[in-house]
Parts: sequence; structure tokens; C-alpha cells
Amino acid sequence: MSAQIGVTGLAVMGANLARNLARNGFTVALHNRSVAKTDALLEKHSGDGEFIRTETLQELVDSLEKPRRVLIMVKAGGPVDSVIDQLVPLLEPGDIVIDGGNSHFQDTRRREAALAKKDLHFVGIGVSGGEEGALNGPSIMPGGSKESYAALGPLLEKISAHVDGKPCCAWIGTDGAGHFVKMVHNGIEYADMQVIGEAFDLLRSGAGIEPAEQAKIFTEWNQTELASFLIEITAEVLGHTDARTGKPFVDVVVDAAGQKGTGRWTVISALELGSPTSGIAESVFARALSSQAAQRAEAQEKLAGHEEKIAVGEGFVDDVRQALFASKLVSYAQGLDMLTGAAKEYSWDLRLDEIAGLWRGGCIIRAELLKDITKAYSAQEEPANLLFAPAFSEAIAGALPAWRRVVATAVQLGIPVPVFSSSLAYYDGLRRKRLPAALTQGLRDLFGAHTYHRVDDDGTFHTLWGEDKSEIVAEDTH
Amino acid sequence: MSAQIGVTGLAVMGANLARNLARNGFTVALHNRSVAKTDALLEKHSGDGEFIRTETLQELVDSLEKPRRVLIMVKAGGPVDSVIDQLVPLLEPGDIVIDGGNSHFQDTRRREAALAKKDLHFVGIGVSGGEEGALNGPSIMPGGSKESYAALGPLLEKISAHVDGKPCCAWIGTDGAGHFVKMVHNGIEYADMQVIGEAFDLLRSGAGIEPAEQAKIFTEWNQTELASFLIEITAEVLGHTDARTGKPFVDVVVDAAGQKGTGRWTVISALELGSPTSGIAESVFARALSSQAAQRAEAQEKLAGHEEKIAVGEGFVDDVRQALFASKLVSYAQGLDMLTGAAKEYSWDLRLDEIAGLWRGGCIIRAELLKDITKAYSAQEEPANLLFAPAFSEAIAGALPAWRRVVATAVQLGIPVPVFSSSLAYYDGLRRKRLPAALTQGLRDLFGAHTYHRVDDDGTFHTLWGEDKSEIVAEDTH
Repeated sequence: MSAQIGVTGLAVMGANLARNLARNGFTVALHNRSVAKTDALLEKHSGDGEFIRTETLQELVDSLEKPRRVLIMVKAGGPVDSVIDQLVPLLEPGDIVIDGGNSHFQDTRRREAALAKKDLHFVGIGVSGGEEGALNGPSIMPGGSKESYAALGPLLEKISAHVDGKPCCAWIGTDGAGHFVKMVHNGIEYADMQVIGEAFDLLRSGAGIEPAEQAKIFTEWNQTELASFLIEITAEVLGHTDARTGKPFVDVVVDAAGQKGTGRWTVISALELGSPTSGIAESVFARALSSQAAQRAEAQEKLAGHEEKIAVGEGFVDDVRQALFASKLVSYAQGLDMLTGAAKEYSWDLRLDEIAGLWRGGCIIRAELLKDITKAYSAQEEPANLLFAPAFSEAIAGALPAWRRVVATAVQLGIPVPVFSSSLAYYDGLRRKRLPAALTQGLRDLFGAHTYHRVDDDGTFHTLWGEDKSEIVAEDTH
Repeated sequence: MSAQIGVTGLAVMGANLARNLARNGFTVALHNRSVAKTDALLEKHSGDGEFIRTETLQELVDSLEKPRRVLIMVKAGGPVDSVIDQLVPLLEPGDIVIDGGNSHFQDTRRREAALAKKDLHFVGIGVSGGEEGALNGPSIMPGGSKESYAALGPLLEKISAHVDGKPCCAWIGTDGAGHFVKMVHNGIEYADMQVIGEAFDLLRSGAGIEPAEQAKIFTEWNQTELASFLIEITAEVLGHTDARTGKPFVDVVVDAAGQKGTGRWTVISALELGSPTSGIAESVFARALSSQAAQRAEAQEKLAGHEEKIAVGEGFVDDVRQALFASKLVSYAQGLDMLTGAAKEYSWDLRLDEIAGLWRGGCIIRAELLKDITKAYSAQEEPANLLFAPAFSEAIAGALPAWRRVVATAVQLGIPVPVFSSSLAYYDGLRRKRLPAALTQGLRDLFGAHTYHRVDDDGTFHTLWGEDKSEIVAEDTH
């Protein structure tokens, strides 16, 4: 008996993917550096399906049908390279090495190029959905060659989540495209959670609504266009009472948000691409700020507030809902714009409809909204920006008055809403006829001879500021 | 006759630094890949002082007194490495190789380590002030070993700008510290220019004040705590009339701001350090957005505005001035916080008082404000955040009501003020007792078992969400 796929690295994500594969009828060869973990999995879960126990990578490789499929599930970074180095000498041309961890897409690009030289396929796959998703159906974003997908895709599609009968898995693009799209997914997830947090804070501090009551509101919101996994679990978390103190659970948790790095990576990539991803950036910075415990403690003593004591109006709760939705739309628009930029930069033929489609199930940002996004990008002509799709330009137009009221109110009340306000600034900036960037260019030309363009003429110009302020034609240096 | 310093790379920055050195009494050996540039400089500017003409790097090296000081002024990146590779075999232990370009500090760290192995000093120096500063006195931020500064510092201090008799040059710290501080200077410069742009836009679109009239306002503001080079030249640019059309100059310039990369580098470093530098990030993204010409054109047709037609009050101009000052303070606070983080991360003993001091003259962000910043960090106990220094916590407390009014007004008028609003969100976030990050942690624990801390107990906890929602002690994984 030979296995269709081998898994090396049986920590919880690797073990759950292996079990998911076995439950779906595939024979799975198992390997882990310490055999104890392999045996533990077999002992507990051999009922899931057919497993082959191996003790060495050589045994793992020998147990696989060809072309071999080896899924590496170890910590991103050096450990992945180390396993690859050990695996490669054991493989044959045409075999497929898969990295299912949260690797940086540039590492994946590097590894893909290196293995391609040895006629091996290297496939970086983004897997979202956490431990539970890995076991019961994650959202899967595979990169690598199209050829490798023919041999690997059917397995991945089978174990992925399904929505409306369609697998939440599709070939994303060559080399690091899968890991890139997973990274942007996580970036959007950061923004998604931050705007929920801002809504929570507004309802609590602005309207005095306690967490248990808010749980009901979020449950209601989950029946609107906000319907999504994160809104659903927000209701669950806000509704939870701490057993030890009887207080709302959310009040006993330290308000310092951790991060594992993919949000940061997303913003760094956006900066490199020149894509304005301000909502995701503000989310990452909000987490960083929350973790500066010493400074925050001192700030509470030393920094004044001067909030205006305004009362929020009757429609405040619904205003917040609309502001939340509009801000969320902007985060998606920014993330997808980044994908458009990356497709150009890295020569990927990204299908935004398919990407939005496979985010509809299994992953953390799964949401009703993604159905409409899929539809928007399936149109004959793809919108240049998500917000230009008629469904969304109309939705945001409807939300706009509420959005403005909420941000203005937050500002007056002293409630920080970095992503609500940043998203609105992005929206207003995008649609604005003239931006003060013209003044920026004037200043840069004055102090650094960086030159400028004119609205009424082609070419590049420079004003002789230090002399008679006449204008000359210049070499383009800005 | 031997030279005290050699300069290789005689484009405008290199040529102007060489002339500055010669004018200050140093004998300067000149080298350029094409000798024509060397000869051109000698022909035009031999009157500046003592120059030695050389045609090869060997001749350059031979013309220098020991320890040799060789200043490389070529394009950052590969060209710097290439010149270093050619130079090193010609040098002797103890010689000093200087890179005066806008190199990334990590490149400088790498080069410093490599040359140290050959007993050579490598000094990355940040030079700010543009072409004019290079010639007449820039702000200079040298890194490298303290030993190298003993041999190099006196020359640099002599040619730098001076304020109150003190040179705008001081040893910053080892290896890449100089280039790092210069990078953050540029990041602050991005934010400085963006907040000026937002003020301009508010006065124009909110209060209908034309550029020529605004030039007078900025000239007045230059007599207040805003006094700075950038405010001064803003008045000059806004007051300038385009000769061709008779229109305000700022109206004929294309409103797409360019960038050369140091702003982006600053934000990337801040992300790596976990330092919340949202104002600089928003400035970089504002430039990126301004350059998305096709999307902006389409957005003007497709995205609704729904601005409220509110009239701005009588005090609006002064409100904007105060909001501008407060936002600027936050940008400085964020930039300096980043330096504090970098000092820890890279083991630099950064003296923030000296850094603020050497920014007081010669460089683009030179400002009256820096005198007070220098003072704040000269205090017996350095503030943990610039905003905690009494002078600044009071200043911002005074500006706060105006700041809130301005941001709320901008939001209602549909005028994008990404940095005004982001800075206010940072301020309100920093001083806030409880942030919604607690909810974020709850969500992360629910979907990813990322664990959390409690406000009332030590240790790390996890709630069994999928089971009976009891709480267990957990391994720290967030």
C-alpha cells in the first residue's frame, strides 16, 4: 500500500490536516522528528482513515506514490529550509514539495526557484481557519506551478471548506502567490477585528451599552450585510461572563493585543508596492500601541482629554453599524487593490473573483459580503477598485452620512477610531478632485529640486526658486 | 601636499560637500569615475580652496594623509558596494571609509561589520539639507565607531550648519545609527509636509482662503510655535504665481506626490520595531494614493460625497493652526519613540537631546520646536514619550479642543485629513484607560487559541470556547 500524500510535522495544524486528508479517503503517510508525536496521533485518531507510520524522511518518501506529494508543516523560517534540504536528495524529478505554514511569500518564491532547478515542484499553500478549519475544512490558497496543481489540487479541494457546493480552494498563481494572498487575507483580518473593536468601544463608551447587551446587537448585526464569522464570534465573546468574577469576560482580559507578524508583513508589502493600505496599517499600529503598557499608564496621568460631553442620538447604534460596514468595505478594497498591484509586480494572473470566492468559507474573514465581492469581480469588466462596483458604491453612499456622524462624534468624545477615520480619509482622498499633494510637490521642488508636472502641459518642470522663480524644463527626478 | 579627505562621486551632493570642505580650509582630493566631472568642478570652483585632482582610486588613496578619510558619494545600493570593493584593497588598517548617501541602515550595518573584519572603519553618515545644505552647512548624522568619530568628527562639525554656535553634527551611535536617524528624520519630514498640506486644504476648501492669502497666514504662523523651514517655504510656494497662466502656482502643479523611499523605509522599520508610527505611515500612503491617477479619476465619477454643508466658524483659521501643531507634535513623538525602540533593538546609545539638537539647523525639518525638544530630553529624567514632557503635554492640552473641532469639521465637509485624524486617534488611544484590544484578544483566543492575560491574575489563559467555556491555564502563544 502506498500513500497519496505524506505529512511531516505533526503539531496541531499538521496533525489536523493529516486527519482531514485521511477522513476524506486519502492514505496519508505520517512523519515527525520525534516519533512519539506520530504514535500519539495514530493512537488517538487511527479511526479517521488510512495512515502509514514512518520514522524517517526516507521511509516517508518511500511510502508515497509518484509523483510524490510531501506536505511540510513545520514552523515558518529556518525549519522549513532545513526540512527541504533533507528532503530534496530523496526526491525525484516531478515530485511535489508543499509548504503549508505561514511562510513569507518571498521565501516561497526563493524556494520555488531553487527547487525548479532540480525539476521539483515547490508549492506554498496558504491555509486559513485555524486548528478547527484544518480538521474540518479550511480555506486553501495554493501557489506554485499550474502543473503541480493538476496533481495536488484535487486532494486540496476535497479537504477544503465548501460553500454552495464549491471548494474554498483554487489555484492562485505561480510561486509565492498562494502565500501572498493568505498574507493579505490576514491583513484584512486585522482590519476586520479592529473595526469591530472600534464599534464595540463606541457602543460602550459612547452609548453606554454593556457587553451582554452588545452581544445581542452583534447577533442582530449578523443578520445584516455584516454577517460573518467574526461578527458571530464577537457576539459570543461579548456575551461570555467570566466565571471567576462574574464580570463580562471582555473586562477581565488585558487590553494588549498580540500579533504574529502577518499583519505587519501585509503593510510592508503594501508599502513596497506603493498601495495605500492605511486601514490595515492602522490596525497593526493599534495593536502595537495597545501593547505599550508603560507608556499607556503614564499617558493616563499626563495627557489631557478635553472631550466634549455630547449625547449620542437615537440612531447611534445603527450609525455605528453603517460606519463599521463602510470601514470594512474600505479595508477589503485596500487589500484587493494590493492584490492588483502584486499581480503586476510579481507577474501573477490573480483572479480576484476566485480569491474572494475561496474566502467565503473555512477562513477567519468568511463573510456574506464575499459573495457580492465574488460577483463584482466576475463581471465582464473588473472594477479598478472594489468600491467602484455598483453594489458597493451604492452601499457606501448609503452609509456615508452615518459614517461621517460616527467619526465626528468619536473625535469629539475622545474615543479613538483609527480605522473608521482612516478609512473615511481614504475614501474622501480617493474621490477628491484636487489633493494637497500639489503643494507637497511644490515644497519638494523648492528644497530638493525634485521637479513637478503641470496640469496643462507635458514634460517635467523645475522652478528656479532661489533665483528669479522662472520655470525651466527639467530632467524627471521625482 | 596631502589631502585631509578624499571624495569619490562628484554629482551635485558630492561636489557640494567637497566644496564645503575646501571652503572650510580642508584640502580635498577629488575623484569621479569620469574625469570630466572632476575637471568641471575644478574649472568652476577651484577658488573655493585646496583641491587635489586624481584620476583613479589609487591616486585618490595615495593623495590622502593617514588615517585616510574617503567619502563615497554615489547612488545608494549596488554602486556603494562596488566602490567599497574597489577601495578596500587599496587601504590600510585604521583608514576610514565614509558613505554620505541615503543608504539603508541595514546595508550600513552589514558594510560596517565587513570592513571591521579588515580593521577598516566604515562610517555611514546621514546628510540632510539638500544641495544647498551640502554646500553651505547641512545637518550631519554620523554613525560608525566612536574611534572613527575622533578622526572624522572635527571635519564634519566644521562644515555642518551651526545653531547658537553649536554644530548640527554629533556622533549618533555605532554602525548604522547615523543612517537610521537620517531615515527617521525623513519620515518626520513626510508627516510634516502632509500636515501642512492638510492645513492648506482645510483653509482652501473649508474656509475658501486662496493661496496668496494663505501665504500671508503661513508667514504669520512662522512667527508662532510653528516657526520652521517648511512653514516658511510653504508661504513662498503658496505666494508664487505661475507666470504662464497667472494662476496660483500650486494650482498648475499635478497633485501626485512622488517619493524616493525613505518615508517607506521609516514605516517598514517602525513595523519591525512594533512602534506605532501611524502619522508617518498615513503620509506615505497619502502620497501613494495621490499617485493613483486612473483610480482617482474614476472615483470622482463613481463615489458619492454627501458632505454636510456646514459653515466654519470665525476661529477656524486659528483652530487649524492649533490642529497642525498638535498633529506635528504627535509625528515627532512617534518618530522619537521609534528611535527609543531602535536604540534597544540595535544596541545604540542614542542621545535624543543631541539628535533633536542637530536637527535644529541645516536640515529640512529644522524648526523652533526642536529647541524645546532638545530641552525636554536634556532633563534629568528623559520623558518616555515626547508628549509627556510638561511643555508638550501642556501645549497639546491647549490645542486639543481646536484639534477635535477641526477633525470633526473636516470629516463632515469631506476633506481628507488622514494625519490630523490619525494623530488624534493615536493621542486618544495612548491616554485611554481601556482599549478594545481586550476584545481582539478574546476573538483571537476563540478562533486561534492564541491565549490571553487577565487583569487580575498572573499567567496565561485560554477559554475552552468550543466546550464548556471554562478557563484553563495555557502556554503563552500570543
